[in-house]
Amino acid sequence: MTPVQILDSTLRDGAQAEGISFSVNDRLELARILDGLGLHYIEAGNPASNPKDLAFFRQARELKLRRAKLCAFGATRRKGSAADADKSCAALLEANTPAVAIVGKGSSLHVDEVLKTTPAENLAMIEDTCRFFARAGREVIFDAEHFFDGYALDPAYALETLRAAARGYARVLVLCDTNGGAFPWQAAEITRKVCGEFPGCAIGIHAHDDGGMATAISCAAVEAGARHVQGTLLGFGERVGNAGLSAVIPNLQLKLGYACVEPGQLASLTQYALRAASVANTRLRGGTPFVGASAFAHKGGMHADGVLKNPASFEHIDPAAVGNRRRVLVSEMAGRAAVLPRVQRLYPDIGADDPALERIVAALKDRELGGYSYEGADASFDLLIRRSRETLPAFFELISYKVLDQLPYQGERSATATLRLRADGRVKTAEARGEGPVNALDLALRGALRAFYPALARVRLIDYKVRIMDSAAGTGSRVRVLITSGDGARQWTTVGVSHDIIEASWEALADSIVYILLNDYKIDGK
Amino acid sequence: MTPVQILDSTLRDGAQAEGISFSVNDRLELARILDGLGLHYIEAGNPASNPKDLAFFRQARELKLRRAKLCAFGATRRKGSAADADKSCAALLEANTPAVAIVGKGSSLHVDEVLKTTPAENLAMIEDTCRFFARAGREVIFDAEHFFDGYALDPAYALETLRAAARGYARVLVLCDTNGGAFPWQAAEITRKVCGEFPGCAIGIHAHDDGGMATAISCAAVEAGARHVQGTLLGFGERVGNAGLSAVIPNLQLKLGYACVEPGQLASLTQYALRAASVANTRLRGGTPFVGASAFAHKGGMHADGVLKNPASFEHIDPAAVGNRRRVLVSEMAGRAAVLPRVQRLYPDIGADDPALERIVAALKDRELGGYSYEGADASFDLLIRRSRETLPAFFELISYKVLDQLPYQGERSATATLRLRADGRVKTAEARGEGPVNALDLALRGALRAFYPALARVRLIDYKVRIMDSAAGTGSRVRVLITSGDGARQWTTVGVSHDIIEASWEALADSIVYILLNDYKIDGK
Repeated sequence: MTPVQILDSTLRDGAQAEGISFSVNDRLELARILDGLGLHYIEAGNPASNPKDLAFFRQARELKLRRAKLCAFGATRRKGSAADADKSCAALLEANTPAVAIVGKGSSLHVDEVLKTTPAENLAMIEDTCRFFARAGREVIFDAEHFFDGYALDPAYALETLRAAARGYARVLVLCDTNGGAFPWQAAEITRKVCGEFPGCAIGIHAHDDGGMATAISCAAVEAGARHVQGTLLGFGERVGNAGLSAVIPNLQLKLGYACVEPGQLASLTQYALRAASVANTRLRGGTPFVGASAFAHKGGMHADGVLKNPASFEHIDPAAVGNRRRVLVSEMAGRAAVLPRVQRLYPDIGADDPALERIVAALKDRELGGYSYEGADASFDLLIRRSRETLPAFFELISYKVLDQLPYQGERSATATLRLRADGRVKTAEARGEGPVNALDLALRGALRAFYPALARVRLIDYKVRIMDSAAGTGSRVRVLITSGDGARQWTTVGVSHDIIEASWEALADSIVYILLNDYKIDGK
Repeated sequence: MTPVQILDSTLRDGAQAEGISFSVNDRLELARILDGLGLHYIEAGNPASNPKDLAFFRQARELKLRRAKLCAFGATRRKGSAADADKSCAALLEANTPAVAIVGKGSSLHVDEVLKTTPAENLAMIEDTCRFFARAGREVIFDAEHFFDGYALDPAYALETLRAAARGYARVLVLCDTNGGAFPWQAAEITRKVCGEFPGCAIGIHAHDDGGMATAISCAAVEAGARHVQGTLLGFGERVGNAGLSAVIPNLQLKLGYACVEPGQLASLTQYALRAASVANTRLRGGTPFVGASAFAHKGGMHADGVLKNPASFEHIDPAAVGNRRRVLVSEMAGRAAVLPRVQRLYPDIGADDPALERIVAALKDRELGGYSYEGADASFDLLIRRSRETLPAFFELISYKVLDQLPYQGERSATATLRLRADGRVKTAEARGEGPVNALDLALRGALRAFYPALARVRLIDYKVRIMDSAAGTGSRVRVLITSGDGARQWTTVGVSHDIIEASWEALADSIVYILLNDYKIDGK
C-alpha cells in the first residue's frame, strides 16, 4: 500500500475552535493519544505568537513519542529583514522540534493586500525562511496559504511560491484551502498539476470544512497524488473545522488502499477518538462518521432487519475495522424485533410471540413518553426488562432523604444530605457533606450501604451528565441524568428523569447500585 | 441558472436518526418550514409501514403549502402479486399525495439475497408499481436502492432497473448510495453515464454521510448531470445521517450556479435551519457548514485580524447570503483586538492602549481559567467589563439562602428555598416551593425582589442549560449553568460556575437580574 503521512493539528488549528481550550496537561495527553494512534506529525503550537506554546514545547521534550514528530508552526520572516534576525523565527527554533511548518502566502492577492509587499519579496521570504530552518537541521513543511484561490487567480505565481519553498529545501509542499471554499474535483485537478511540477517533493493537502467538503477534498487530493494530509483527529478547527482525520484515515486506508497508520491502530480508532474527546472535554458527536456512537446504529425496522441479513446493505465498512460496533437501537420505532435480542440475553425462553415481550415493549414506550431514553442507558434498560418480568430483590429501600444546600457554606462544603433507608431488615441513617447537593446525596448513599454490601467500595462514578429536556420551561424544566459507573472491570450506565435534578440523580444512582448488586450477587430471579 | 429540484426527507429518513422523534404537530410544523424555504418535495412518511404516517397524511391535506409537493414513500409491490392487489400500494395511494417515491432494488445482489426472487421479477415489480401510481395520476419518483454498489457489481442489470421504472412512467430516477460508502468521483462518473442513457428522465441523487462525503457526492452528481437532490435539511438520518440540504443548497446555488430555492429564501437559510432544529428539539451544532453559529466565527488573533481586512481570506462566502453572521469571539486567544469593540460599546473613551483594557482582558482570562465561558453569555461579559471598570450599584445583596430538597415530597413539590437579602436598606426574607431546588430558589428570589423592582414581573426565564465540565469527576464535577432571560423585547444570557449546581444557578440568576436592572434604571455609572 502506498504510504500517506498524516499531520494532526488539534493542538494548533484545533485550539482555534469555538468552545475549545486546552490546558498544558490536556496538550500533553492529546500528544500521547495522537502518537499512540501512530500519526506522523503533531503540530502543537505557534511559539512565536504565544508564550504558552513555547512553554509547552519545553515540557513536551519529556514525552517519549514512539512514532510522531513534534512540529512547531510559524509564519515566514517579516518583509525586508533576514530570517536569522527575526524574533519569530528565533522562537520557532527555540521550540526545538524535529519538524517545523512554515506558512507563507500562496496567492498574489494576499501578498498585495495583506502582506503589502512585492511578489518578489514574498518569494524571498518563503525561500529564506525555509532555508533557515533546513540549515538548522529541521524538517521543513511549507504551508501555502490560500493556495487554491491563489491558483485560480494566478497559477504561475502560486506555483512560484512552491518553487521558492523547494529551493529553500522544504520537504513537503502543502496546498491549503484556507477559507474552506473549494470543491474536491477542483482540489484534485490542481493537486495533480502540482504533483507533476514537483516530482522531488511530497505534496500535502490542508482542507477546511466550510463547504462540508474537507474529507472529500483530502481524499481526492491523495487520489491525485498528494502524500501528506493535514487535519485534526476530531475535526476541531476555526469556524466549521478542519478535515477530520477520524474520517479521512479510514477512507484512505480501508477503501482506497493507502497506508496511514498501522492496521492494529486503525482497529482502535474509535477508542482513540473517544479518549481525545474526553481530554478536550467535548462529547464525541453520535453522528461522527466511522467513530460516532450512531455511525453503525440501526433504528428503522426494515434497516435493522436488513443489516442482520447482510451487513453490507446498510454498513459501508465492518464497524470492527475502526473499533466501533453495530447497535440496534431500542426505541418505539424499533419495535419487538429490536428489543427481543436484549430480552433474550436475560430470559432466553422468551420468544417473539411471547406476551411478556409485548409487556416489555409497552413499558418501554411508557417510559419514553415520560422522558426516559434508554439509547445510552443499557443498565437501566436491563432493569426495566427484569422489573416488567419479576419482582427484583429489595437490596435496599429508601425511607427518605433530605438535602440542605446553603450559602454561605457551613464549613467547607455547600451541601448536607441525610438519608434513611432499610436494608437487610434494619433501618440505617447516614449523613454526608458534599460539593453540591447531588454529591452529598451520593456520598450519603454509599456511606449507608457500605456496611451491607462491602463490594460497593470498588464502584466509582465515571461520568455524570445532565440534559435539560424542555429548556424553554426555565428552571422548572425536566432533567434527564445519565450516570456511568464502573468497578474497574465493567462500566454500566443508568438514567433518571424528574423535574428535580436531585431526584433524577437519585434514581440513576439507585439503579446503578441495584444493577451491580444483581450481577455481583448472581441473583438472576428465574 | 439551471434548476435543480430538492426533496427533503426529514420526516421520513430523518426520523430514523438516533435521538429524533416527531409528534404529529412537529411534523406539520416542519412541513411548513420546509415549504417556507421553497423546497420542491417533502417526503413525509411511509404510510404502508406505519399507521401514524397515514394519519399524518390525512391531517397534512389541510396544510396550505405554497410550493412543496407532499410525497409518500413506499416499496415496490410484493413478488408474485399485482400492484393493484397489494396492501402496501393501497396504503400509499390512500395517502393521496401529488407525488410518491417508490423504492426498489437497484442491485442484483439484493434481488438475490434479500428479495429472494429472480432478476426478471424484480424488474416487473419496479415497472408494475411505477405504472400503477402513474396511472393513478401520481408523479412517480423511483429510488434505486444500493444503486452505486449494484452498478459496480453488474452495471447492465443496475441500468435495467432504471429502464423498468422509466417504462412505468417514473419521472425521476434516483441513484441511492444506501450504505453511504461511495466517493464523489465514483458517484459523478456513474451519474454521468446514467444521464447519457436516460435523456428523457430527471436523474436524482440520494447520498448518506457514512464516509463524510454526502455533501460532496450530491454536488458532484449535479455537476455530472443530476437535476434532483434528496437529503434532509439538517442532515438527520439513519446512522451518520443523510446529505444535509443546508450545506448542499448553498454550495449548488452560491458557488456552482444552480437554482434550487428562491434567492430571498436562501438569505434566510440560517433562520429556517434554526427553526427546524428547535421543532426537532435538537441544538443546531455550531460547526454546521453555512448555518452553524460557529460557521463564520473567528477566534485566532491573526484570523480575526485578517477577516476584518479582507473577508474572503477566511470566509468562503458572505455570511449574509445564507442569513448567518460573522462573529469575533471573546476569549483569551482573541486578545485585546477582539475585546475592544465590546468594551467600547460600554465605554467609548477606552482606546486600544488603555491600561483599563489590559485589566479587562486579565479579568477575562482569570474567569476563563476558573471554568467560565463568555462565548454564549453576552450579558455576563458586559457585567464583567463594567465590574472591572467601576463599582456597580448594589441593587440587592444576598445575605443567605437555604434550599431543602426531600423525598418523599412535602406537599406537591420537592424543594423549598428560603432566601434573605438586603435591598434599599431593608432586609427581606422570602420562601418558595418549587419543582426542584433551582426552581425554588428562582421563585424565592423573584418573590423577594418584586416589592423593590416591579419591572421584574415582566422578566421570564427562556432557557436553562447545564454543562458538566469535568464529568469524569462524577457527582463532584464542576457545573456551568447558562440562563437566558427575556422581557418580551430583549433576550440576554448569563453564566455561573460552581461545584454546586444551585450556587452556579444562583450566580447566573443574580447576574441576569442585575443586568436588566442596570439597563432599565439607566444607571450607566460613568
